[in-house]
Amino acid sequence: MESHASSASTPGALPYYVAFSQLLGLTVVATTGAWLGVYRGGIAWESALQFNVHPLCMVIGLVFLQGDALLVYRVFRTEAKRTTKVLHGLLHVFAFIIALVGLVAVFDYHRKKGYADLYSLHSWCGILVFVLFFVQWLVGFSFFLFPGASFSLRSRYRPQHVFFGAAIFLLSVGTALLGLKEALLFELGAKYSAFEPEGVLANVLGLLLAAFGAVVLYILTRADWKRPLQAEEQALSMDFKTLTEGDSPGSQ
Amino acid sequence: MESHASSASTPGALPYYVAFSQLLGLTVVATTGAWLGVYRGGIAWESALQFNVHPLCMVIGLVFLQGDALLVYRVFRTEAKRTTKVLHGLLHVFAFIIALVGLVAVFDYHRKKGYADLYSLHSWCGILVFVLFFVQWLVGFSFFLFPGASFSLRSRYRPQHVFFGAAIFLLSVGTALLGLKEALLFELGAKYSAFEPEGVLANVLGLLLAAFGAVVLYILTRADWKRPLQAEEQALSMDFKTLTEGDSPGSQ
Repeated sequence: MESHASSASTPGALPYYVAFSQLLGLTVVATTGAWLGVYRGGIAWESALQFNVHPLCMVIGLVFLQGDALLVYRVFRTEAKRTTKVLHGLLHVFAFIIALVGLVAVFDYHRKKGYADLYSLHSWCGILVFVLFFVQWLVGFSFFLFPGASFSLRSRYRPQHVFFGAAIFLLSVGTALLGLKEALLFELGAKYSAFEPEGVLANVLGLLLAAFGAVVLYILTRADWKRPLQAEEQALSMDFKTLTEGDSPGSQ
Repeated sequence: MESHASSASTPGALPYYVAFSQLLGLTVVATTGAWLGVYRGGIAWESALQFNVHPLCMVIGLVFLQGDALLVYRVFRTEAKRTTKVLHGLLHVFAFIIALVGLVAVFDYHRKKGYADLYSLHSWCGILVFVLFFVQWLVGFSFFLFPGASFSLRSRYRPQHVFFGAAIFLLSVGTALLGLKEALLFELGAKYSAFEPEGVLANVLGLLLAAFGAVVLYILTRADWKRPLQAEEQALSMDFKTLTEGDSPGSQ
């Protein structure tokens, strides 16, 4: 289903694209910090600044770390598959824990202020991201890291796992954009249209978020940048191919 | 670079997914119409209702028609390549014209009301979509429909064209979500958090937009649903392979 280059060498342009993605990702995190620090009074848990924990945690966890977790198979192309898998799973655990802190922060802030929860499109998308992320992690863990699942089952599930991983990441980026927009309109109101510095900075942050999403997606989808099969995996895959020659891979 | 199934038969599940995408796309257009009709007084060019032309045109042009234009190669799998190409290009022309009407509507409305232009993240993303869409169409036309470009050049450009096509489509969906959010917050303000019917309907519309984007992306990225090479294209591709055997396809 997926074509793997048989050569184990790293494609020439890949490191530059990965470096660019990291530069973009760190710029996104730094710009979020700068926005919250300069225009929103910084971050604290026990005050009205508790809200600011939310965007920072979400950008670090669900955008930057989640994006990097997806790139693990492109960056560590020649490591043992199991090591790469464990790193991929662990980065998602870190992303989830940080995002959970961000989630608790906003619910706690709403409770203290007496604000309503879960009324906006941003919040609906956010909850959807959380549920999908958690289910994807559980199913991924039980299929790929837990020893039970057969090679055939893994091969069938892999493309779905990859698609849903990319889709959840993109939905996370989209949800961040919606949240940013919400935070701007609540705070700036009509001043937004007067090109206030905060509005311009936040718009730039929005474009940076979208660009990070696009670069990660580009690296992920380049067919010739996919992780090549290692020698022992190749042998296993050949065995499997021989066993299932009569099987139609196209059927669902 | 891309693996094509050699069988020309349509994969079993594809028609159901395509039907589902069309159902979703039409529901998105209908829900946008319902939202504008029920809560925003409907549509007209010569009044304050001119603004409403903007979201309707953008959803029809840059979401529904653009999404369908991407699916053309999956739906018309066994038609001649040239016919499918022309349909793909034409659907993009229709999408562009409708989106242009939507663009003129909002600028004209802003001018009449004395509102500032291009200050919001939605507008920045929107302009970016327009520029990228136009450039992608021009480059696509000159490489794939205009007779000049060589087979080798086309083969190298094709994966980039596919990636940028999907990215521009996803950015269009994201921009629509930002615009929807903006329209809600401007109009409803604090009432949004009281679960006003308009807010709930618009949130549902937002989820439907995201779902349409996801289903189109799923159909596009299923490796075994890619358009198979027709007999004459296969022969041509073989010739090309023989000619460029020494050439590394992985090098940039």
